Amino acid sequence: MRTQVVIVGSGPSGLLLGQLLANAGIDNIILDRVDRDYILGRIRAGVLEVGAVDLLDRAGCGERMHKEGLVHDGFELSFLGRRQRIDLKGLTGTSVMVYGQTEVTRDLMDHRAATGSKTIYDAANVTPHDFDSASPYVTYEQDGVTHRIDCDYIAGCDGFHGVCRASVEGKGLRTFEKVYPFGWLGLLADVPPVHHELIYANHARGFALCSQRSHTRSRYYVQVPLTDKVEDWSDDAFWDEIRRRLPQDVAEAMVTGPSIEKSIAPLRSFVAEPLRFGRLFLVGDAGHIVPPTGAKGLNLAASDVHYLFEGLREYYAERKAAGLDAYSSRALSRIWKAERFSWSMTMLLHRFPEDGDFGSRVQEAELDYLSSSQAAQTAMAENYVGLPY
Amino acid sequence: MRTQVVIVGSGPSGLLLGQLLANAGIDNIILDRVDRDYILGRIRAGVLEVGAVDLLDRAGCGERMHKEGLVHDGFELSFLGRRQRIDLKGLTGTSVMVYGQTEVTRDLMDHRAATGSKTIYDAANVTPHDFDSASPYVTYEQDGVTHRIDCDYIAGCDGFHGVCRASVEGKGLRTFEKVYPFGWLGLLADVPPVHHELIYANHARGFALCSQRSHTRSRYYVQVPLTDKVEDWSDDAFWDEIRRRLPQDVAEAMVTGPSIEKSIAPLRSFVAEPLRFGRLFLVGDAGHIVPPTGAKGLNLAASDVHYLFEGLREYYAERKAAGLDAYSSRALSRIWKAERFSWSMTMLLHRFPEDGDFGSRVQEAELDYLSSSQAAQTAMAENYVGLPY
Repeated sequence: MRTQVVIVGSGPSGLLLGQLLANAGIDNIILDRVDRDYILGRIRAGVLEVGAVDLLDRAGCGERMHKEGLVHDGFELSFLGRRQRIDLKGLTGTSVMVYGQTEVTRDLMDHRAATGSKTIYDAANVTPHDFDSASPYVTYEQDGVTHRIDCDYIAGCDGFHGVCRASVEGKGLRTFEKVYPFGWLGLLADVPPVHHELIYANHARGFALCSQRSHTRSRYYVQVPLTDKVEDWSDDAFWDEIRRRLPQDVAEAMVTGPSIEKSIAPLRSFVAEPLRFGRLFLVGDAGHIVPPTGAKGLNLAASDVHYLFEGLREYYAERKAAGLDAYSSRALSRIWKAERFSWSMTMLLHRFPEDGDFGSRVQEAELDYLSSSQAAQTAMAENYVGLPY
Repeated sequence: MRTQVVIVGSGPSGLLLGQLLANAGIDNIILDRVDRDYILGRIRAGVLEVGAVDLLDRAGCGERMHKEGLVHDGFELSFLGRRQRIDLKGLTGTSVMVYGQTEVTRDLMDHRAATGSKTIYDAANVTPHDFDSASPYVTYEQDGVTHRIDCDYIAGCDGFHGVCRASVEGKGLRTFEKVYPFGWLGLLADVPPVHHELIYANHARGFALCSQRSHTRSRYYVQVPLTDKVEDWSDDAFWDEIRRRLPQDVAEAMVTGPSIEKSIAPLRSFVAEPLRFGRLFLVGDAGHIVPPTGAKGLNLAASDVHYLFEGLREYYAERKAAGLDAYSSRALSRIWKAERFSWSMTMLLHRFPEDGDFGSRVQEAELDYLSSSQAAQTAMAENYVGLPY
């Protein structure tokens, strides 16, 4: 087989890149080691920056999102029993879109079918080869047979544990990492959200987040020690705990119900440099991970896709490599700013036992200052809605 | 002896409070365990917020400051060989005044002589008594004789190591502290400043600061490990090191010369709560310490003095205690925001080996973001020029 671009991974970044390429007449094949249902079963973030919304529109996949997604013009911070709204729209002129990653993925899968581009699921042992040369190829196994796809470029959209970054280890790859000493226990339930906007809570008992996927489906989180197991947390224990961490009026308004899904996710900051190795590009989680505070993960994948697509489009349309040559540095410049923001939101809102009471007071002082400063609120808001591509 | 207010400590906060009280017709006596020349020999910060400048003017002690001080409309950050100016005046409408703490202290001492208020130097074993009662008094020893001053109120302006905070330990005092794993090696020299504004440098070798006291006297600093001794650092070694940490054009323009003073200071964040214990008030460094990054130490002392003076003035003029009752919470609200700012500037600009390469990249991303965001620059500037009293 031969194609122009092999995309490893059919999560939202691989699918979005594939759609943009197909629309531009650039042949591509997506390979994934798992199947479509497995991918759609993943529960992920649900806040899209305007840049990601625009990119889905440019890909022609934004219709259902605009119909079913919720436009949020702000969010709230709570601390010391107080609530402070960050007026995204008023401060930046821009809103965010609440629309679950699962829905984005489903829309992209549905549109891909119409492009006629090939997606190969259940592809075992996917391996990129010779990307340092002018003739890269990718192999995979299916039904006991090894297949080979020759290509011009390989896009590694296969996530943090994928094969693409693993295949460039020792080839000049440098990694930067911070692991946080806690996790997020998340609960998904078919109950109406407690508030029409998200609430990020700093509390002496730990962070909490009230988020949502729709008017009837809520996603709530509480900070828990990494030693906790999800089996330790009954639904009742979860609801009791999150209410303790919220201002009284919010806690009292909360509608509870049985969980559809409940899981504990660790928090990690991670960046790989560079993001290009010859004819292999790392995109999205394959190249970087942010802690979920601030909802930047999917949005950063979208900006990577934007930079890489622009480079590939330019290459195939004009035979110019400038965009591809700039991919790594352009993407990393935006990635590091989002890493900085996600790290700072995480540091501001969670309890870090090792920082002691001084650390808690500094958080409260920052939230108090933020409540009084339009400049500080604007800085937070412009990061939250997304820095320009 | 009897007076209305005993002020322990004749540094700038004690002297400023004494001047304001004397001008308002409120009797006060200042006690200090050391003498005038010792106090004037201390080298301290040199950047005054507009609030501190106004307070010195209100005390009638601002004349020489306005003649000899340097108005700075901005400062610079340097990182990765780049320079980014923070336009304080343009962003906030406000400037800062560069005028050494030693000069402030000298001006206040000179004016105190004219008020006829008593200052007792070389007072040994100063001890506050019975401040929980309506009849507090302070004792001290001089020439082998114990003296007693009865008073209404005691102002503890005697610094971090003073007797006033020590005397309230175990009486509901709560303290918050962070110690940083490095110090500042400072060098004072009679050489023209390398730049007309301050330069705060983030560098892989560590923080550096180019500051000044006048057009002919410069004060430079470099971050050093706490294990370094000042004897380890020749003047030449200092000049070589600071030039390595600055952008090339700055390093090349630097005029060097023999040091007048050279010392290593540790960096500490510290806050005591509350700041009132009956009829005893903690003011300035007696109640809180900031790391010097951002130059908030003297300025916070000034805002404490403002709040306490307003409370005392109201009490003596109108026999109302509301201002005194609010002193601790008013002062602490501003103190914690300045602690937060000083901590964040320290975290942004110094190298923390324990945060590794991820930490350095996050700092550089924040400085890069700051360079691109008017909102972030405004937030930094409004803290630097000083939040409102």
